[in-house]
Amino acid sequence: MTSAWLDHPARLPDPAARDAALARQAVLTKPTGALGELERLAVTLAALQGRTCPAVTRVHIAVFAADHGIAAAGVSAYPQAVTGEMVRNFAAGGAAISVLARELGASLEVVQLGTVNDPGPLPGVRREWIAPATANFLDAPAMDDAQLAQALAAGRRSAVAAAETGAELFIGGEMGIGNTTAATALACALLGDDPRALTGAGTGLDAAGIRRKAEVIAQALDRHRADLDDAREALRRLGGFEIAALAGAYVAAAQHGLPVLVDGFIASVAALAAVRLNPACRDWLLFAHRSAETGHARVLAALQAQPLLDLGLRLGEGSGAGVAVPLLRLACALHAGMATFAEAGVSDKA
Amino acid sequence: MTSAWLDHPARLPDPAARDAALARQAVLTKPTGALGELERLAVTLAALQGRTCPAVTRVHIAVFAADHGIAAAGVSAYPQAVTGEMVRNFAAGGAAISVLARELGASLEVVQLGTVNDPGPLPGVRREWIAPATANFLDAPAMDDAQLAQALAAGRRSAVAAAETGAELFIGGEMGIGNTTAATALACALLGDDPRALTGAGTGLDAAGIRRKAEVIAQALDRHRADLDDAREALRRLGGFEIAALAGAYVAAAQHGLPVLVDGFIASVAALAAVRLNPACRDWLLFAHRSAETGHARVLAALQAQPLLDLGLRLGEGSGAGVAVPLLRLACALHAGMATFAEAGVSDKA
Repeated sequence: MTSAWLDHPARLPDPAARDAALARQAVLTKPTGALGELERLAVTLAALQGRTCPAVTRVHIAVFAADHGIAAAGVSAYPQAVTGEMVRNFAAGGAAISVLARELGASLEVVQLGTVNDPGPLPGVRREWIAPATANFLDAPAMDDAQLAQALAAGRRSAVAAAETGAELFIGGEMGIGNTTAATALACALLGDDPRALTGAGTGLDAAGIRRKAEVIAQALDRHRADLDDAREALRRLGGFEIAALAGAYVAAAQHGLPVLVDGFIASVAALAAVRLNPACRDWLLFAHRSAETGHARVLAALQAQPLLDLGLRLGEGSGAGVAVPLLRLACALHAGMATFAEAGVSDKA
Repeated sequence: MTSAWLDHPARLPDPAARDAALARQAVLTKPTGALGELERLAVTLAALQGRTCPAVTRVHIAVFAADHGIAAAGVSAYPQAVTGEMVRNFAAGGAAISVLARELGASLEVVQLGTVNDPGPLPGVRREWIAPATANFLDAPAMDDAQLAQALAAGRRSAVAAAETGAELFIGGEMGIGNTTAATALACALLGDDPRALTGAGTGLDAAGIRRKAEVIAQALDRHRADLDDAREALRRLGGFEIAALAGAYVAAAQHGLPVLVDGFIASVAALAAVRLNPACRDWLLFAHRSAETGHARVLAALQAQPLLDLGLRLGEGSGAGVAVPLLRLACALHAGMATFAEAGVSDKA
C-alpha cells in the first residue's frame, strides 16, 4: 500500500469569500478590530467554507484509540489496560469527550485501531483493527508499511465520511497509554530537537519519570536516526496507529475542504506530520489550545499556530478542541448577526 | 445618600460544597488535574453556589450606558453621539452583546444612566437617568455625592433583581465614549500608577492620541491628588456613572451570593473599585479575559485575577464575558457528567 492519496492536492481557501467577510467585519457596529481573534476566526472560516457568513453548527469528532509497544518501557503513570477501558467509557458516554460531544450537539465516532485489552465490538465504536499495539520502537519500527497505510486510511475514512455527510468542522481525538512518548519522539525527529527539551509529564509522571522517559526517547532516536529524514518513515518508526490516523484525517479533511480544529500535544504532532506529508493542508488547520504538556509550545511554534485557549488542559481525546468549539460558533454568530453602522444608524470613527 | 449598604457583608463561599466538588474531581475518569482551569472553575462555582455540581444555565447580563464629560478633551476615536446610538443598537438587537445574549440564552438588560444624545425610552432599556454626562474631571469631580449614590444603587438593583429571579451568573457590561480615559484615571488613582504606563488606545487612538490621553489623565490626577486616597472619593472624582454602577452591582452580587463574570478593562477597574469598597466581594468575581487595552494586565495583576481567555478583545459591553460563558458551562457539564473510575471500570493511576 503506497497511500498515494496523501499527495492529492488540498482544496484552496476561497479568496472572494475571505474578502467579503473582511469587508463585512469592517462595517459591523464595533471599533475596527475590537473583537480580536474572533474576527480573524470568522474571516478564516469564511475563506475555508467559501461563504461570507460561515457556520460551525455540524461538528464531527472522531477519537482514535490504540496501544503502544513503548508502554513496556514504563513511560506512563497509568497501566496499559486503560486504553481499552477508555474505549468502553467513550462508548458508554462517561468520558470527557462524550460529555462535550453531547453538550455541543456534535457527532462522536470512536475508532478502535487496536488495544492490548480488547473490549470487543461496542455500539458507537468503529473497529479498524490493525494489531493489539505497535511494536516497541526501542527494538523495531513501531509499524510496518501496511500497518501505517491502514492507520492513515482509517483516519482518512473518518474525515471523508464527515465531509460527505455535511460536517462543517472536524475534530480528531486520541487515546493511547504511552502516546505522549511516541508523539514526543516523532516531534523530536521532525524538528531535530533534543528529547530533554520536549519531554513532559504526560498523564502525570514525576521529575524522575520524565527524565527516564526522555532517556527512552533519546535511545529510540539513536536506534532509528539513519531513517528519520523522511516524514512518512519517521511516522512509521516512532508514531502510533492513532497518531497516523489523525495525520491521515487531517490531510484528507484538507483535500475535501473540511476545516479542522486541532486538539492538544499529540494531535498537534500529528498535524505537524500531516503538514510534512502534504504542506498545503496547513491552511485547513485551526488550533484549539496550548496544552500543559511540555513540548506543545514548541510544536505549535513550528506550525506557526496561535491557539485559542491556554487553560492548562492535558487530557487529549479531542477534549480541548471540544472546549474551543463555542468560540468558533460565537465568532460566526457575531459575524453574521451584528448590525452594520448603516443598519443601526451608529456613527463611525471620526 | 450614604450608600451604607456597600458595607454589608458579602456571602461566604461554602467550604463543604468546595470539598465535595474537589473529591468528585479526584475520581472522574481523567488523569488528576488534566482538565486544568476547568477543574478549578467547577470547584470555585461549587463553593459559590453551595452545591457539589454547580450550573450556569441562567445568566443575566446588565449593560450600563453613560456619557463622560472628559470626552470634551478629545480622548476618543469616536464621537460622543455613539453612546446614545449604541443604546438604541442594544435595544434593537444589533450590538455584539445583543447577539451573544441571544446565542447564550441569557437575559439582557440595558440600563440607561444618562447620555448626551438621548434616544428616549426604548423597549428593553431601563432608564435610571442621572444626568446627560458626568462633569469633565479636568474641571470638577465627575459626580457629586448624590449622583455617585444613584449610580451605585442602579447597579445594585440589577444584581439584586438577577439574584432574586434565580440567575446563576451575573455579567456587567458598559458603554460610554471616553470611558477608558475615566477607567484609566481611576485605576491610576487606586493603584498609585503612572498614566503613561496604563493608558491605551481605547476604541482606536494612534500613538499621538494615546500620549495626549495620558497627559489629560496626568492633569486630572494632579487636579484631584489631595482627595484620591479614599476609594469611594476616587470613584466619585474620576469614574463614570456606568463604572460606579458596575462597582455597585459587583458588591451587591457578592452580598446576595451571585457569582460574577467580570468583562474587560473597564469592568475590571470597576471590580478593583468594588474590592476596595468591600474587600470580601473579591471571592465572587471570576475574570473572563485579558483585553488588548494596555492597562488591563496591570489591573488584573492587582486583583490577583487569572482570566480565562486572551483573544485580543477590546469591545466592552460585557462581550468578552459573554464569550467566556460556554467555558463555565462546559466546566460544569464535565464536572457533573463524567463517569468516575469506579462507575466506568477504568483503572486508576498505578
